[in-house]
Amino acid sequence: MRNIRMTIAYVGTRFAGWQVQPGRDTIQGILENRIGSILGGSIRIVGAGRTDSGVHARGQVANFKTGSRIPPEGLRRALNAHLPEEIRVLRVEEAEPAFNARSDARGKEYRYRLFRGEVLSPFQAPYAVHVRGGLDAEPMRAAAGWLLGRHDFTSFAAAQCRVVGKERTISLSEVSVDPAEEFVVYRVRADGFLQHMVRTIAGTLVEVGRGRRDPDGLAAILEARDRRAAGPCAPARGLVLEKVFYGEGS
Amino acid sequence: MRNIRMTIAYVGTRFAGWQVQPGRDTIQGILENRIGSILGGSIRIVGAGRTDSGVHARGQVANFKTGSRIPPEGLRRALNAHLPEEIRVLRVEEAEPAFNARSDARGKEYRYRLFRGEVLSPFQAPYAVHVRGGLDAEPMRAAAGWLLGRHDFTSFAAAQCRVVGKERTISLSEVSVDPAEEFVVYRVRADGFLQHMVRTIAGTLVEVGRGRRDPDGLAAILEARDRRAAGPCAPARGLVLEKVFYGEGS
Repeated sequence: MRNIRMTIAYVGTRFAGWQVQPGRDTIQGILENRIGSILGGSIRIVGAGRTDSGVHARGQVANFKTGSRIPPEGLRRALNAHLPEEIRVLRVEEAEPAFNARSDARGKEYRYRLFRGEVLSPFQAPYAVHVRGGLDAEPMRAAAGWLLGRHDFTSFAAAQCRVVGKERTISLSEVSVDPAEEFVVYRVRADGFLQHMVRTIAGTLVEVGRGRRDPDGLAAILEARDRRAAGPCAPARGLVLEKVFYGEGS
Repeated sequence: MRNIRMTIAYVGTRFAGWQVQPGRDTIQGILENRIGSILGGSIRIVGAGRTDSGVHARGQVANFKTGSRIPPEGLRRALNAHLPEEIRVLRVEEAEPAFNARSDARGKEYRYRLFRGEVLSPFQAPYAVHVRGGLDAEPMRAAAGWLLGRHDFTSFAAAQCRVVGKERTISLSEVSVDPAEEFVVYRVRADGFLQHMVRTIAGTLVEVGRGRRDPDGLAAILEARDRRAAGPCAPARGLVLEKVFYGEGS
């Protein structure tokens, strides 16, 4: 069996997230269906990150096993010819037999886009959240800095998140502003993320940017280990899975 | 009566173009409906350019008369709160009583985006046309140059175009390539455009870029004054109305 690795981009707006769900259009479900049609038989793929309904990706990674000898380039072309245009396979390559897109991932990077201007361009609307009434990037930057390093992120995980062990290490947590000063972008990289973690961080940073929370309050939120200590979970449309990191050479 | 001028952006994908058509969602129709709801009564707006079904705009201009004394800022906010997110009113201002967005327009600028890379990002797909098998920008640039100046554009107008007088003056006709060398963008400015004119120019430039037409053949196409002399009408999704020009101070 060959082990095939894919890098995938998608606009998540009209999909019920990554993970297969009966009766719903999901990225994983559509990919498995199309790969199955092209290669024959039933295919099960493993994705690096289970993005939620409405979340986008520029660099999702997934893998699957197949006995087919189709060349990677040929598979990429055939797949893109049969996928909806919101889902594109950017790269297909043969991986080591043991490669697993999920368990081998050493880290991921996400971006969350906020718009603080007067009128959000319809060309940007599907990928950003419009925050009215001002958003001050400086305190958001200070708040984001508190998250760097290894912490228990229970306060930023969905209340129903069942994962055992909620410590994660954030290696990048950065707020930037575009040249027109209208978009405020939060970029975060960690060895792993809990359910709703980036969106809950974003929702909390928005409260800081609006002056409703003190940036230094982030330390106490982490300390609380209680979902109610953090801000709301920000909407899915602002979030993009940018990149998945693996070990050397992959 | 006050004369209100609006600048409008829209993603045209799911609309049947600018102009009102019974039983179909058009930009003009939706705007008239929402403005009517906000101001009361029936409103008729005049748009600078009747963009086709699926064509986008970053700077469409329109005007309408009203007895309402609502401040321009208030109208803009109320409109954006009630419009679908694919349509945004960027600016509302009071115009001279005689201002007419259509007949006063001195010129317009359009952009047509082509993609010549391997995989078109799903984030760009709604606003660009993927041309496979290579596209050489140099001959396209040469071809675009032939269109500069005053010409009879009959060859580039829809066969059913009934306008009397098909001479137009093109003051900018430029092919550029993005830094990643994947997008080829055609920018054109003229005192007016015939039906399908930019898309037929784009379709002809694509044939030049693929080596199927000689760039110097553009002179003969203009000379022919025959729609069959030019290339096909390129798809609507690649086209954006960028800007409408008026006289000094407007």
